[in-house]
Amino acid sequence: MIDFPGLKEIVSATPSKIVMLVVDGLGGLPHPDTGISELEAANIPNLNSLAQKSACGLTTPVIPGIAPGSGPGHLGLFGYDPVKYLIGRGVLEALGIGVQLEDSDIAIRGNFCTLDGEGRISDRRAGRLSSDEAIPLCMELNSIKIPGVGISVYPVKDYRLALVLRGDGLSDQVSETDPGRLGLPPVECRATGELGGKTAHVVNTFLAESKKLLTNHAKANTVLLRGFSSLPDLPSMVDRYCLTPAAIAAYPMYRGLASLVGMWVIPTGTEFAHEIETLAESFSQHDFFYIHYKPADAAGEDGDFSAKVKALEVLDGYLPELLEMNPDVFIVAGDHATPSVLASHSWHPVPFLICSKWTLGEGVEAFNEKDCGKGSIGQISATHLMLLALANADKLTKFGP
Amino acid sequence: MIDFPGLKEIVSATPSKIVMLVVDGLGGLPHPDTGISELEAANIPNLNSLAQKSACGLTTPVIPGIAPGSGPGHLGLFGYDPVKYLIGRGVLEALGIGVQLEDSDIAIRGNFCTLDGEGRISDRRAGRLSSDEAIPLCMELNSIKIPGVGISVYPVKDYRLALVLRGDGLSDQVSETDPGRLGLPPVECRATGELGGKTAHVVNTFLAESKKLLTNHAKANTVLLRGFSSLPDLPSMVDRYCLTPAAIAAYPMYRGLASLVGMWVIPTGTEFAHEIETLAESFSQHDFFYIHYKPADAAGEDGDFSAKVKALEVLDGYLPELLEMNPDVFIVAGDHATPSVLASHSWHPVPFLICSKWTLGEGVEAFNEKDCGKGSIGQISATHLMLLALANADKLTKFGP
Repeated sequence: MIDFPGLKEIVSATPSKIVMLVVDGLGGLPHPDTGISELEAANIPNLNSLAQKSACGLTTPVIPGIAPGSGPGHLGLFGYDPVKYLIGRGVLEALGIGVQLEDSDIAIRGNFCTLDGEGRISDRRAGRLSSDEAIPLCMELNSIKIPGVGISVYPVKDYRLALVLRGDGLSDQVSETDPGRLGLPPVECRATGELGGKTAHVVNTFLAESKKLLTNHAKANTVLLRGFSSLPDLPSMVDRYCLTPAAIAAYPMYRGLASLVGMWVIPTGTEFAHEIETLAESFSQHDFFYIHYKPADAAGEDGDFSAKVKALEVLDGYLPELLEMNPDVFIVAGDHATPSVLASHSWHPVPFLICSKWTLGEGVEAFNEKDCGKGSIGQISATHLMLLALANADKLTKFGP
Repeated sequence: MIDFPGLKEIVSATPSKIVMLVVDGLGGLPHPDTGISELEAANIPNLNSLAQKSACGLTTPVIPGIAPGSGPGHLGLFGYDPVKYLIGRGVLEALGIGVQLEDSDIAIRGNFCTLDGEGRISDRRAGRLSSDEAIPLCMELNSIKIPGVGISVYPVKDYRLALVLRGDGLSDQVSETDPGRLGLPPVECRATGELGGKTAHVVNTFLAESKKLLTNHAKANTVLLRGFSSLPDLPSMVDRYCLTPAAIAAYPMYRGLASLVGMWVIPTGTEFAHEIETLAESFSQHDFFYIHYKPADAAGEDGDFSAKVKALEVLDGYLPELLEMNPDVFIVAGDHATPSVLASHSWHPVPFLICSKWTLGEGVEAFNEKDCGKGSIGQISATHLMLLALANADKLTKFGP
């Protein structure tokens, strides 16, 4: 969380409203042929003119050089130190498919794989098992009963699954069963700490039962498990910021991340247009909205420069509708850069703008990496953006006498 | 060390090569007559054009306001928190003259001084004893034998010497013998902690013997000792970064510092031209090279503005040779500023550039304090530069799910 112990004493609720638009994978890098980035190449008049009225800068998602996953990237924007608050891989996998986790649940990433006649892993992806093939197998695994423990198996995508254990006395202090490479047998699950004994036993029982159920399946004849984790203990944004924060996101993972920090998750559709409608409908009911835009990241991850440009232009077209709602503070930020030339998340600082009645005229020429780098706020840790949001919303009084 | 516990899980070895050129005392301040700094005054076309292709910024060596010595300045650049990892003065003195220290050695700074007839210090520098006078005296002191302890006395410069104690049961938990001012007698060495007893006894025996040997020398009739220290326990860059790091430095102190963090020290000559040759010869054998350029600092320490300008221009002339080797990541950074107008190390942020295929077009106009301050990376802690180096070299995967 923000390393600012004095926050509690200076923050209070006010009627002002904050909208934080998180553009997933917002930042980019210059295309080698043109020397300009996706944001510079895009025709984004609304974002550019907004930047001119805003305070601008660049956020460092974690620390320089570190490219974050979606979990740390979002936690930072919500004001939580992503190095301190770690989200387990199993938890994120479960959140990503919309599983409602309880505090004591253990969430686990799993995948179907193929063992040869001697019990050694011969295909870590079970011959790229399709979702259609995996779904009935997951249903079969769901029939496994272990006394005193709830077992839920969820198909994720292709050969991937999520396993959730529910019950008393479970722990993430156990070892993974995935040996990490071909030609080795799966590893027995062992306790790695005092609390892991029961869970290791449950996991090994589950794996033995699943092997029996899958024995006649040529490709997917066993399951590997890793990323054992439980919900992180995150302070709520409600207490921390005196907000009634709400999340509007088409993708389940981002709804899950928002719920971890105490946001109300408002049901919405599958497209950004639905998210905007949802925001308009619920605008009177909350004082903070996180709204998520995914397509920029997806195009960047595909390494498709022009698709990312297009995704940014589409977003720009929605901006007037967002601004018509007239939030007191409007923020455009990114959880991390996803430069098309890298085709992955990256460590580069991410442009942001924050627009309120207290930022008029502080702005820069255009909304992109280079111009925001010259903004009045400069390079800041992403974890400080929430403080700027609260300050611009008149929700903070001065610190110290 | 970098406050980033997750590094181990995201770093791996790749064939890519990083060259970090450390320009000692790189940063400067404007000359009062012209208002421009050494870097701005220098004709450095190669550095300037490289900056245009690079990501640029300023490093803070320790924290704002703190001017580091060479030890903390370099540790920061290598990614080690210089506030956490302290290098003792005795150790640095010994490293500076090329002494190979072992883990349990105690290294001590010493100096010859003059005691008056009543045993009080009358000249702390023994009448500015010259090196020529000091060398035979050090050889005499080397003849002192104490059972169970190896005694080595090395001349450093003028009236300064280094004393290294080698043997079991030694400790740096002892007090200094230098009372700190004139007119007082030297102080007996005492244990300041449980482990210091043997060392205090050895030191007092050595001082008693040295007094006997020096008794007929008018100026240098005794020795003061301080800076008792042993090698700090620094994690190796090899384990930390999955690198095979190598150091090329003409001056022994920098080779010593590099060896403390696990670098291979490659023998080289006494000039930067030799360092470049050494780099070319060994380029295939390592994936990280630290190469050190001293003259900028030396000129700055002398308060010689134009000599520092010249030193930077000479460096600029070597740049094409360095770039011809085609490292995947090339960094120019400084361990601290040494502004000529201050004639000493300073606390000012130090310009840096980092050039890789992921920095194309992000750059600034020129390589100097003001332009780098407008760079895309902004002001960062020097300890984060290594993370940027690894990220740009594709040696890091993303952090967190």
